[in-house]
Amino acid sequence: MSAPVAPAVLAGLLGEGWRRPGASAHALADALRGLVVDGRLAVRTRVPSERALAPQLGVSRGTVSRAYDRLRGDGYLVSARGAGSWLTLPAGAGPGAPPPVFGGAPARALDLTIAALPAPEPLLGECAARAATALSRYSAMLGCAPAGVGELREAIAARFTERGAPTTADHVLVTAGAQHALHLLLSLLTTPGERVLVDAPSYPRTLSAVRGARARAVPVPLGASGWDVAAWDAAARAVGPRLGLTIPDFHNPTGLTMSAGDRAALAATAARSGMLLVADETNAELRLDGPAMPAPVAASDPGGAVVTIGSMSKSAWGGLRIGWIRAAPRLIRELAAARADVDLAGPVLEQLVAVELLARWDEVLASRRALLRPRRDALVSALAEHAPAWTCRRPRGGLSAWVRLPSPVATRLAAAAAHAGVHITPGPSFTTDGTFEHHIRLPYTRPPDDLARAVQTLSQLATRVGGATAVEDDPAPAAI
Amino acid sequence: MSAPVAPAVLAGLLGEGWRRPGASAHALADALRGLVVDGRLAVRTRVPSERALAPQLGVSRGTVSRAYDRLRGDGYLVSARGAGSWLTLPAGAGPGAPPPVFGGAPARALDLTIAALPAPEPLLGECAARAATALSRYSAMLGCAPAGVGELREAIAARFTERGAPTTADHVLVTAGAQHALHLLLSLLTTPGERVLVDAPSYPRTLSAVRGARARAVPVPLGASGWDVAAWDAAARAVGPRLGLTIPDFHNPTGLTMSAGDRAALAATAARSGMLLVADETNAELRLDGPAMPAPVAASDPGGAVVTIGSMSKSAWGGLRIGWIRAAPRLIRELAAARADVDLAGPVLEQLVAVELLARWDEVLASRRALLRPRRDALVSALAEHAPAWTCRRPRGGLSAWVRLPSPVATRLAAAAAHAGVHITPGPSFTTDGTFEHHIRLPYTRPPDDLARAVQTLSQLATRVGGATAVEDDPAPAAI
Repeated sequence: MSAPVAPAVLAGLLGEGWRRPGASAHALADALRGLVVDGRLAVRTRVPSERALAPQLGVSRGTVSRAYDRLRGDGYLVSARGAGSWLTLPAGAGPGAPPPVFGGAPARALDLTIAALPAPEPLLGECAARAATALSRYSAMLGCAPAGVGELREAIAARFTERGAPTTADHVLVTAGAQHALHLLLSLLTTPGERVLVDAPSYPRTLSAVRGARARAVPVPLGASGWDVAAWDAAARAVGPRLGLTIPDFHNPTGLTMSAGDRAALAATAARSGMLLVADETNAELRLDGPAMPAPVAASDPGGAVVTIGSMSKSAWGGLRIGWIRAAPRLIRELAAARADVDLAGPVLEQLVAVELLARWDEVLASRRALLRPRRDALVSALAEHAPAWTCRRPRGGLSAWVRLPSPVATRLAAAAAHAGVHITPGPSFTTDGTFEHHIRLPYTRPPDDLARAVQTLSQLATRVGGATAVEDDPAPAAI
Repeated sequence: MSAPVAPAVLAGLLGEGWRRPGASAHALADALRGLVVDGRLAVRTRVPSERALAPQLGVSRGTVSRAYDRLRGDGYLVSARGAGSWLTLPAGAGPGAPPPVFGGAPARALDLTIAALPAPEPLLGECAARAATALSRYSAMLGCAPAGVGELREAIAARFTERGAPTTADHVLVTAGAQHALHLLLSLLTTPGERVLVDAPSYPRTLSAVRGARARAVPVPLGASGWDVAAWDAAARAVGPRLGLTIPDFHNPTGLTMSAGDRAALAATAARSGMLLVADETNAELRLDGPAMPAPVAASDPGGAVVTIGSMSKSAWGGLRIGWIRAAPRLIRELAAARADVDLAGPVLEQLVAVELLARWDEVLASRRALLRPRRDALVSALAEHAPAWTCRRPRGGLSAWVRLPSPVATRLAAAAAHAGVHITPGPSFTTDGTFEHHIRLPYTRPPDDLARAVQTLSQLATRVGGATAVEDDPAPAAI
């Protein structure tokens, strides 16, 4: 078991949004549970002693002690003589389980913490059937192909070429999704304690992957309308990072798309500073309307400074675990070798399904857009009707909207909404420092009626929790 | 880039077997290349300076310098001003690529470095077709199931119960194979620098997974006929490890099977010392003949001290990426949460194929045994005929034989054999300290004729390299 998380780090993760008038112990327990449930703190993280945490949070030791007791009672904290206490998950909690609600389960839960669509049937089934038939062509294969099956590497490369970044199969490693791609890159290229530039806000699993690699995320704030290339350049100079992670297309959570000029500028910054810029294109092919997309960041690469990761999880289906890394061939070979320690290689059948899907990729994307457009419109309409004080840029693609509330109550709104059966992700989940209490992320992946009902509920609750606010203003109110 | 590998560590990995009369620079280059090709050194490992390495190996700086030049020329070493030199892989090398041969490619290569069989067709194709049909039942699923699809967890649990270790689905996490299982366990349960007990010799990818987690493998030697439970107990007391890794059934590479008594003793040692004993059952279901198997180590678990990992890669097919972890439910939940940072979850279709295969598991195993028995017999006969001075226990299961040579020339034999087109894994690949130069591992997964040809070639070459031996005797001659 490692050392306990430092009280200052924990206080940073908690931010200020967890505080509720009265009931500090309850509120602190809720907040700590939230951190482990949404992955901002790893399971098995040791918590600081009551004596160490209390002054950091400005509460009494008794408050921390009662919060820990409550977590222990609910199964989120385990203590052992001489080994302190560490966070865990009780039965029925954790990834894949419905989000937890305390003090009575709601009648009809609506989970808006996940931005994902059902499978594109019957298309997926047809592709799976064809792949099952094709599988026998590989039956003589003994070992595995750590970089991926050749025909899939070719098909992925062809798609990059089509999108404006000429690519051959030796630039491609097939992964089990974008998260796996990021894990492999972080494992190979970072050492414990090393600093990695990330967007602020950023996708929570990007941040937890950095934490999982024992590296440290250094946030570079996004501006209201896009990337601050001067801030990236300054951070690259100041930190000298080996990696910088960004989501240039329909950024998660803000929905922003990086301009062609910013792509070139960031790639140049990367090349100049020796930083590898990792562009996560998970949402890149989910344009719904608006201007045409700029070419992939990789197209601006002066040579080996940009690595692209992508996935079929959002544009096809999350139950399909196929992603990729596009990089210089030597790095691809090194990643394939490093992969041997992680999982050796990917499944052949799954890769053949991906080949079939890429052969019908326009159909796949059309089916996703046909589902998403009316849902996006329904969410935007519901916000205009039921929450006119909230602001939100109309998303041009991707799966979710980034909504700004008039007051910094995102954490409290999320807690109240959970009790009412609507589960959302509050802004601080997209940061390492508890900021963005003015924001919530709302995916528009549920049917229109669900979205309308969710917005109505949230709007009503926001008035209630907003009225009772005793929280400091958002420490980063200018952003987005 | 991390610090260079310490000269003493590198010298330990190299052992003494790399030395050849004359041509030290060539021999050193070959040996270093071997370490990165077979994963004993990670790609991107920085090598020590010539000045630091030369005295450690007792060679001149010029020898190290010429070896590095040679590696640079062959594409295995990259140097950058101010950043030193690090190991990499040239095009056409690395996992999945054929083993490298230098100085002229052989006419007809025979790769005995991989212990794996072709797919069980038509059975696999039938199961894949059924799974493709079943997939639509999951199309409404949005997110993913990090612990695995319920019906597969149930089926894996049922198989454990059948084998004598009563298990329910909440004890099971589905993984992408045994390597992935080990990676998840090491990621969650160890911190950098922590010591982990391992068998000596041990499966190379077990050792590299430990290294990949930045933990340190502490070898516990196997005896000639099995596990030294007193040595395990002493090591557990001395080191206080949180993890111990073993392969109780058809141990890779020795083929040994742990006795029922040793299973109970090791589980008791684990429980007493607070060590989690990880039993890798990858080969457990590949019994070919001989006495019935003892119950799984998990059946001796006094409670939470034993974790079992398993895989379909050897008993079904390596192109299928399905494995599992059996552990206490809380640990399973923690692993599922930790997995979110690695790859989120496994593919649904692949898991449904595994469900279908488990429904016909006896057929799957029968097809593997039908292939393996005559091949095992062919290998044993060929050894008796062509290499009567070599000793080898007749394997009762698993996929390979562990062969003892009369002199400690395994590394040189492997190098000479590669030039003759026969690729084998020498004993030192199964250790962290260059020992086991008396041993080679020979899988019997190729057709009988190939095996006979391989043994003939190896036997002829062994006489040649053995005659020229100038190497110290195996530092661990008593073992196995």
